[in-house]
Amino acid sequence: MTSTILETLNREIAGLAYGQHPPELYEPIRYIMSLGGKRLRPALTLLSSALFTDQWAQFAKPAIAVEVFHNFTLMHDDIMDAAPLRRGQPTVHQKWNPNVAILSGDVMLVCAYELLLEAEHRKLPTILKKFNRCAAEVCEGQQLDMNFERLPTVPEADYLNMIRLKTAVLLGFSLELGGILADAPTAQTDLLYETGVAIGTGFQLKDDLLDVFGEQAKFGKQVGGDIIANKKTFLLIKALELAQGDTATTLNRWLQAVDFDATEKVRAVTDVYNRLNIKALAENKMNEHFAYGLRCLDALDVPETRKQPLRDFIEQLIHRES
Amino acid sequence: MTSTILETLNREIAGLAYGQHPPELYEPIRYIMSLGGKRLRPALTLLSSALFTDQWAQFAKPAIAVEVFHNFTLMHDDIMDAAPLRRGQPTVHQKWNPNVAILSGDVMLVCAYELLLEAEHRKLPTILKKFNRCAAEVCEGQQLDMNFERLPTVPEADYLNMIRLKTAVLLGFSLELGGILADAPTAQTDLLYETGVAIGTGFQLKDDLLDVFGEQAKFGKQVGGDIIANKKTFLLIKALELAQGDTATTLNRWLQAVDFDATEKVRAVTDVYNRLNIKALAENKMNEHFAYGLRCLDALDVPETRKQPLRDFIEQLIHRES
Repeated sequence: MTSTILETLNREIAGLAYGQHPPELYEPIRYIMSLGGKRLRPALTLLSSALFTDQWAQFAKPAIAVEVFHNFTLMHDDIMDAAPLRRGQPTVHQKWNPNVAILSGDVMLVCAYELLLEAEHRKLPTILKKFNRCAAEVCEGQQLDMNFERLPTVPEADYLNMIRLKTAVLLGFSLELGGILADAPTAQTDLLYETGVAIGTGFQLKDDLLDVFGEQAKFGKQVGGDIIANKKTFLLIKALELAQGDTATTLNRWLQAVDFDATEKVRAVTDVYNRLNIKALAENKMNEHFAYGLRCLDALDVPETRKQPLRDFIEQLIHRES
Repeated sequence: MTSTILETLNREIAGLAYGQHPPELYEPIRYIMSLGGKRLRPALTLLSSALFTDQWAQFAKPAIAVEVFHNFTLMHDDIMDAAPLRRGQPTVHQKWNPNVAILSGDVMLVCAYELLLEAEHRKLPTILKKFNRCAAEVCEGQQLDMNFERLPTVPEADYLNMIRLKTAVLLGFSLELGGILADAPTAQTDLLYETGVAIGTGFQLKDDLLDVFGEQAKFGKQVGGDIIANKKTFLLIKALELAQGDTATTLNRWLQAVDFDATEKVRAVTDVYNRLNIKALAENKMNEHFAYGLRCLDALDVPETRKQPLRDFIEQLIHRES
């Protein structure tokens, strides 16, 4: 079923009409949406609706709203992070310019709302209320992430709250939306939200881990990219919390280094992580969240056979290596 | 009634809760909303709803959605235009930074949708459909305006279409929204939209005129600011269309001048406008739109006494000198 869902989504996404004129406004939307990606969020929405009905295909348009919203956040985040590449291709502000990326992004957010209007009208107040909250929280997460860059370190709890806002709540909303669209009872859609937030938090911790401990051949991105950029990941935050004596000195020297060999820095900081057992700590935290997400899924009042496709999809996310 | 409406709006705006944390996200929203302005758009919404009901105060929250949306566009436009000041105060990207202005603006757009949810739920599909279209059109107008900056000139029809999108449709939506909220029949809300678009177009032409022919003491902004910046206003477009021989040479020399005395340029270009009778042409075009707007208002199936407050408000807009 999952492959049928992904086919449906990609067909719908390819067929979306975004407006035509002026082209500077709408071409970047077509461009970023065509860069692909796993279509993870709308797949979660449809897999979630499929827990309750076989007629999930009717929900493709509102499901795509979360993908359009996600890509809107990428377009604006890429400006703020001055990122040159997205999925191996030039970012919108690079290919066009920052003004185009601001304005196209704004229209994308409007498009996301327009797609949500394809839900049954009696459900709009509930859906929009939850979507608005989620959208504001994603912005809060991005602002916190930028604020953290200017701090020497942040408490673990603040970091986990930031990734909950920036990444996890949208996965929560994606699953919840599928339940709402399929007329699931509130107790069930609440559990779906919980599932998504937990899986999303684990997902981001996995990202932090893969950056350092992923296999280059499978990972796709440059292994150690976060280390080179001093990005405040869970790993760095725990290392800064735990390092003492020589280890602390070494870590801080690399964090302050201006002229350095990238490979050497990655090797040295990874070495610090290994000395402090950071990998196991991060894996434990990640597994805690994944386990909680799977327990929420277990608790759903839906026959086990119906749960299988969503469970398989989530297991795949848990075990991904890129 | 209009003063009661403005008091209600300002009280509601002052009392809006936007979220608190992180402050970089929400302070700029409070800041730009507190800079004042005429609250023109939500006043139009409530005056419009007052055509059909005395219970207009219940619509204050959805009315404020258009004010929040308008200020969102100002926040993002100011980044794109690199504007240092807004209503005499530093713009958000100047006071904080461009990233804060991008992200706070995004949250403001979400806030506008959240305020629209305060409308009666059965009206949401209609209201949101129309709002989405209007919001996308405003972005189209801004993109066209930026595109025009790079062109030597643009046809009059393209300019009028641009100001319709960038400025007028939001005034149209503001009036239409008031009618929808007050349960007016579609034929009436359509007329209200037409009224707003026509008045809004005239309003922007008035702006173009005041920049050159306004009295400095009343105008507030620097008279001739558009001339100094070579801004493609209706006046400049008509002058470029009509100028021939020496007049064309003079105009083009001033447009290409790099080192110039601002006062002298304003005087010289105004002189060109006078030779070509541009003021009368712009006034005719403006009056055409105002007259059409007032005819739409006449055509509304509402007792004349009920129309008076809206008519007075619009007449005031027509005769403003700043």
